[in-house]
Formats: sequence, C-alpha cells, structure tokens
Amino acid sequence: MIFARRMSRVRPSAIRELLAHGADPDLISFGGGYPDQRLFPLDDLRAVLDDLLRPERSQVLQYATSEGLPALRALIAERMRAGGTPTSADDVLVLSGGQQGLDLVAKLLVDPGDTIIVEDPTFLGALIAFAPLEPSYATVRMDEQGMDVERLAEVLRANPDAKFIYTVPDFHNPTGVTMSIERRRRLIELANEYDVLVLEDTPYRELCFEGVQAPTLASLDTEGRVVHLSSFSKILAPGLRLGWLTASPEIRERLGLLKLAADTQSGTLAMAATAAYLKGFDIDAHVQRLRDVYRAKRDLMIRTIDETFPDTVARTYPTGGLFTWLTFPEGFDSARFMAEVAVPEAKVAYVPGATFFAVDPRPNHARVNFSSVPEEQIVAGITRLGEALHRAVAEIRLVDADFATLTSQKEPVA
Amino acid sequence: MIFARRMSRVRPSAIRELLAHGADPDLISFGGGYPDQRLFPLDDLRAVLDDLLRPERSQVLQYATSEGLPALRALIAERMRAGGTPTSADDVLVLSGGQQGLDLVAKLLVDPGDTIIVEDPTFLGALIAFAPLEPSYATVRMDEQGMDVERLAEVLRANPDAKFIYTVPDFHNPTGVTMSIERRRRLIELANEYDVLVLEDTPYRELCFEGVQAPTLASLDTEGRVVHLSSFSKILAPGLRLGWLTASPEIRERLGLLKLAADTQSGTLAMAATAAYLKGFDIDAHVQRLRDVYRAKRDLMIRTIDETFPDTVARTYPTGGLFTWLTFPEGFDSARFMAEVAVPEAKVAYVPGATFFAVDPRPNHARVNFSSVPEEQIVAGITRLGEALHRAVAEIRLVDADFATLTSQKEPVA
Repeated sequence: MIFARRMSRVRPSAIRELLAHGADPDLISFGGGYPDQRLFPLDDLRAVLDDLLRPERSQVLQYATSEGLPALRALIAERMRAGGTPTSADDVLVLSGGQQGLDLVAKLLVDPGDTIIVEDPTFLGALIAFAPLEPSYATVRMDEQGMDVERLAEVLRANPDAKFIYTVPDFHNPTGVTMSIERRRRLIELANEYDVLVLEDTPYRELCFEGVQAPTLASLDTEGRVVHLSSFSKILAPGLRLGWLTASPEIRERLGLLKLAADTQSGTLAMAATAAYLKGFDIDAHVQRLRDVYRAKRDLMIRTIDETFPDTVARTYPTGGLFTWLTFPEGFDSARFMAEVAVPEAKVAYVPGATFFAVDPRPNHARVNFSSVPEEQIVAGITRLGEALHRAVAEIRLVDADFATLTSQKEPVA
Repeated sequence: MIFARRMSRVRPSAIRELLAHGADPDLISFGGGYPDQRLFPLDDLRAVLDDLLRPERSQVLQYATSEGLPALRALIAERMRAGGTPTSADDVLVLSGGQQGLDLVAKLLVDPGDTIIVEDPTFLGALIAFAPLEPSYATVRMDEQGMDVERLAEVLRANPDAKFIYTVPDFHNPTGVTMSIERRRRLIELANEYDVLVLEDTPYRELCFEGVQAPTLASLDTEGRVVHLSSFSKILAPGLRLGWLTASPEIRERLGLLKLAADTQSGTLAMAATAAYLKGFDIDAHVQRLRDVYRAKRDLMIRTIDETFPDTVARTYPTGGLFTWLTFPEGFDSARFMAEVAVPEAKVAYVPGATFFAVDPRPNHARVNFSSVPEEQIVAGITRLGEALHRAVAEIRLVDADFATLTSQKEPVA
C-alpha cells in the first residue's frame, strides 16, 4: 500500500499517547482543554430539542445548506456585532467545530512548502490540522502581551511569501496570555504591508475574567484579510460540534466549497438546537456564569501553584480562558518528568510543552488546564505536583531566559 | 491573494446553481437525494435525547475520542456482522457523514495526478470530495449489473498504479443499478491482482425493495484492501450527520489521524443519541417501513414514467435506493432542456446527468429521485415532464448506444 506523500507528516501525537493512561482512577489530569461539563445548559438544550423534534419541524433532521442554517448564521452575525465586530449573516460559514476552520483555511492557501507564520508556542490542534498540507513554519516568540509583533516584522521580512499568520489573540492556547491592543493594530498594519492573510482563532474570547477584551483583529481589518474563527465548544458545549468563521466574500465562498467537499454540512439538528437556544435563552447570562466559575478556578490554581511550587517554576497569569503555562528551569524535561514522576508517583498529568512548538520544541514547559477539574482536585493535584517538583528541581536554578518575561506576571493590582 | 493550486479544481457545481431556483412554490423537484422527512423517527429521537440530556449523563455534550464513542462503534460493528460483513468495533471509524470518508480516503492515498478509478457515471459528491486532491480519473462504464468488470480489467491494465477503485455497488447513485455477485467477486480478484484499494460506498444498501442484497465487497475481501463506507443519513436521519467506515488496522488508524486533523471528532450528542436509539429502539422495523414506502414510490414513479414518457426515453429499474436514471436520445441536452423547458414551463427539476461523469460528460441523461417527493407530486411532476418531453423529443429517435442495456430493464417477472 503506497500512501500519499502528505502522510509522512501525519503521525500520532505524542501527547495523545501520554494522555492515554486514563485508566488510573487516582490520576488527576490537567491535560485536557475541556470545559467543565457540570456547567452545560442541559435543561435548556433538552427543552429546545423537545420543542424541535416535532412533525411540523422535521426538517431539523434533514439535509441543509453547506454554509449553515440561515437562522444560525444571522444569530452568529448578530452576536459578533454585539461584541464589536461588524459582520453580516452572509459572512458566516458554520463549521463542524473550530478545528474544521483550521483545515479549510490551510487547504485554501497552502501548497506544499508554503510558509505559515505561527506563534511560538502555538495551538497543537492547528499544527495537527496544517500538517497534511505540508507547510513550512516561521515562528514568532511570545511574551506576556502575546505575539511579539516586532519579531513578526522580522519574520515577514524574511518570509515575504508567507501564506498566513495564525494567532490565538485571546487567552492563548497554550500560554494563557492575551495580545495587547497596540500589538493587534501593529499586526494588522504588517499584514497589510506584506499582503498576507490573518487567521484569528478566538474560541476562548468570551471567557474573560477581568475587564473588557481588546478588539478582535477582524474588527481592525479594513482590507478583508482576516479570517475570524470561533466556536460554540467553550461557551455552549463541545459535543454539539459547532464552530464558525467569518471572512470576506471571495474567501468565504471558497471556504464554503471546501466545506462542501469535506463533510457536506454541519449537523442540522445541532445547528437548529443552537439557533433555538440563542433565540430562546440568555446565553450572555450563561457565559457570565462560566466566567465566574472559571475565574474562581483560575484563582485557586494560581494560588495553589504560588504556595506549593518551587520558586524556579514560573507561570503565566491568564485573565481568561482555560490554561496557564508553566516554565521550568532550563534542562528540565517536562515530558520525561511526567512519564517518570508526575504520573506514576504524584498521579498528576499535564500537557508537556514541547508539543506546542512548530519548529524547535522546548522541553521545559507545560500546559495546565483549570476549567475542567473540580476545585478539590485542583488543590490536591497541584499540591502533589508541587511536592514532586520540589524534590526534582531543588538544585536547578536557571530560568529559561526567553520566557522570563512570562514569569514575572502577578495578579493585577486592582 | 494567491490561493493554493488545488483551488483551480474546486469550483461551484453547476448542479447547485441549477437547483438554486427553489423559490418557485409550484416547482416539483426530483433533484435532491433526500430521504422522506415524514419518516424520520422524531418521537423516538425525542425520547432518546430527553433521557440523555440529564446531569448524570452530561458527558454527551463533552468532547469525545476522534474515532467515535466506543458504544456506537460496537453497535455499528454488531449491525454490520448481522448484515454479513465480519467487523469488530476497532475496525470502525465514526464519521461526520459518509462524505467525510470520501475526503479522508482520498487524502490518505492520492498525490496530485494519481489515478482514481470511478464508475461512469459516478456519485457527484465523490467527485467534489476528490477534487482538492487533484486526481486523474480512469472511468469504467456501467450496465444493468453495475460496473463492467471486464472493462475494469482493461482500465487496471492501462493504469496499474491506480490508487483506488471507487464504487457504489448497491442502488448506485446516480443510476440506481446494483452490482451482481459475480462482478463483486471479480472486482475483488482484480483488486488483489493489481494490488489496489477499493472504496465501497454503501449508503443505500439497506433500502432494498426486493430479495436479498449481494454480499458487500468488504465481506468478500481477504486482503484488507476494502474500505467500507456507510451512513446513518438514509436509514435514520441526515441531520445527525453521522456515517462510518471500516478498514484494516493500518488504514483505519491513519484515517483516524486524518479525521482528528479535519474536525477532531463527530458530534458527541449525535453519536450518543444514535447509540441509544440503536440500543433502545427497533431500527430494523424502521428500515422495513422505509423500504415499504420507498418501494411504493419507486413503483409509482416507474409506472408514471412508462405511461407518460416518450418511448425514446429509457429508465433504469432500481431494486432499492432513491434514484432512477433516464437516458434521452442522442443529441438531447438535459441541462439545456431543464433550464429552458422543464423548470420554466413544466415546473419540474431533476439533476442533469452530465455532472455525474468524471471525464466525458454525456448530456443525454438525468437523475430522478423518488424518495423525498410526496406521491401526488410524483404523479403530477413526472406527467408534466412527460408532456414536455413528448413535445421536445418527438423527432429524435436514436437512443444512446452505450446505455442501451440500461434501457431494457423492466420489472422482474416475480
């Protein structure tokens, strides 16, 4: 059997192997990127589906258009406008989860060897989605303000034919940091200057714990070069498998053709249920509840880290989203530590950081999730991890210089 | 904006444009490939969802594994075994509709320029799925026994490096014909001889109106070279967006990685609901009801065609599925006739046949669907189409020689 050349780039992810040890009931895993399933609006969705699954609405189980149900597209556009991003229903393409948008945009733009500019580190799911398109990568380091846009300028100068810039500006996965408004403006300037498309991936944007989020890149875009990608997975439920993107007409139309080729359409029942939920229930109140719960979990995790971890382990301070990012001393291999100590001895799992780097994996990081883990397990698991780290890193004092800026963040004064 | 090279192959389908005239309320369309939505098991699915959407089962809205819920994979394997195809749960990859399987298999195997062997005509959705992979095509003519396997032998001799053979052996889309058991055996022999993979696409298989279907190609396969693709769209509901494939371990595993890259997983709620439906309700009785209704519609359509169409228009006799296939006299352009006469005057739409040919479009065919149209509209629409055809083809007498065999079928004697 001779597979296509792209398959040399499609390999099982080490993280999946590492996280496949779910059998141990004592293990506390901070590895997932899951929302807290105790917060799903089960009653509301049950009421919605009970109302939809009636003979006079049997089209909710039928085929629908590949762009998505018109009612849902309109409601998404309305919600985006309310969030400050000018959008019309025609701009919206409903997706089978945000992941599909990564696949479609890469298909639209990337021939083998073409360059994608990504943050360093970046979302693992994006690297998985892009791999079959056989891209090259240019990476831009991050600090506590998000992607370093002056480095981006250098990267664009060195890669003027780059096909697109991929960024998670709000509560970045894996680092938890948020791009400042000045940098957002500068990123758009640079994209215009180098005539490059921007893929703005914002699944966590609404989960902000403090203040108001900086404007979306899409709202700053005046040349139709931002594809804005988002999802219902974090604000409603991942199991509905619905996301969306917005883009300029010539791009949106082509992405729609690629969607038709890939899976015809997203689930009609899921789209109808989501539209009915948005119409009949108060999603803003629901999102506010998510914010409150996740903020409290973030606080608990940060406090426990600060109380129990060695001083040589740094963390970011996420003002929203699902994750914090740990920086261990240089020379510390978080994957090896997890396999040899954290899982077997401390019974704690996280995602080793190396997997999030497109080009040069750094072994001394880890992504830790606080949204899906019950409060008492946050305290128990982080404390156990801290004890194991104290034993392990007692004599390693050198902090990774490049990420030193990420380590100095503490809670805002206010 | 410079798009990837594959985008030169990704274009809006003419059929979608033609069928986009849905505004006219008097129009009767035989163009869709839809199941009859009056037959969806709404009450059963409502009961299933009412039971699932409870706090103790909140994982039905959470992320799940990319291969699909284990319970659903086991139930699919059980159902396939009951249908005569040896299958284990591990062989099953749950898909976001059957269309996704076409995309994944082409991604696994096809580099630009590689040859795919397809039936002539073939399923339009497959041509749409394969296009971004930039294949070449070799085509194999069909007759009333399905793909002509002696022609297939010639095509394989001429294309020994072909990557796979794509076939819809049961109630073929668009022709409605079914591959005989002798040809199935010969196809597998040839696939073994030329070491080529077979993609068996069987969404209509269970909708058989007469007798017992010939064994699946997967059940005749002894070398792990058949990927068997099917769907819940025609036996349960398209709006759940669930299909599946089965394949040998090395292929199934790689297709699972491509699925992870494309959309992470299929909808958890849809998977859980389908599993609960299969467990708690009698899908065999439901499918039997579909067969009874569709058989009666097939009979009504065939009878009305025979009574009202000119003798120079031939049709196939489908023993199951959703479609019959019309052959008009040579020189008759069914797309032009639809745009100029059928839609504006007779207020009837179908799918012009040219769109189903991978290489040489034949203009003198049409695909007609009988499953989704109410009985009274079948009679009214076919009669109107027959009257318009009488006026149009009165003086054209020559029947397409290649498809003459498809025109001679009448109902079986028994």
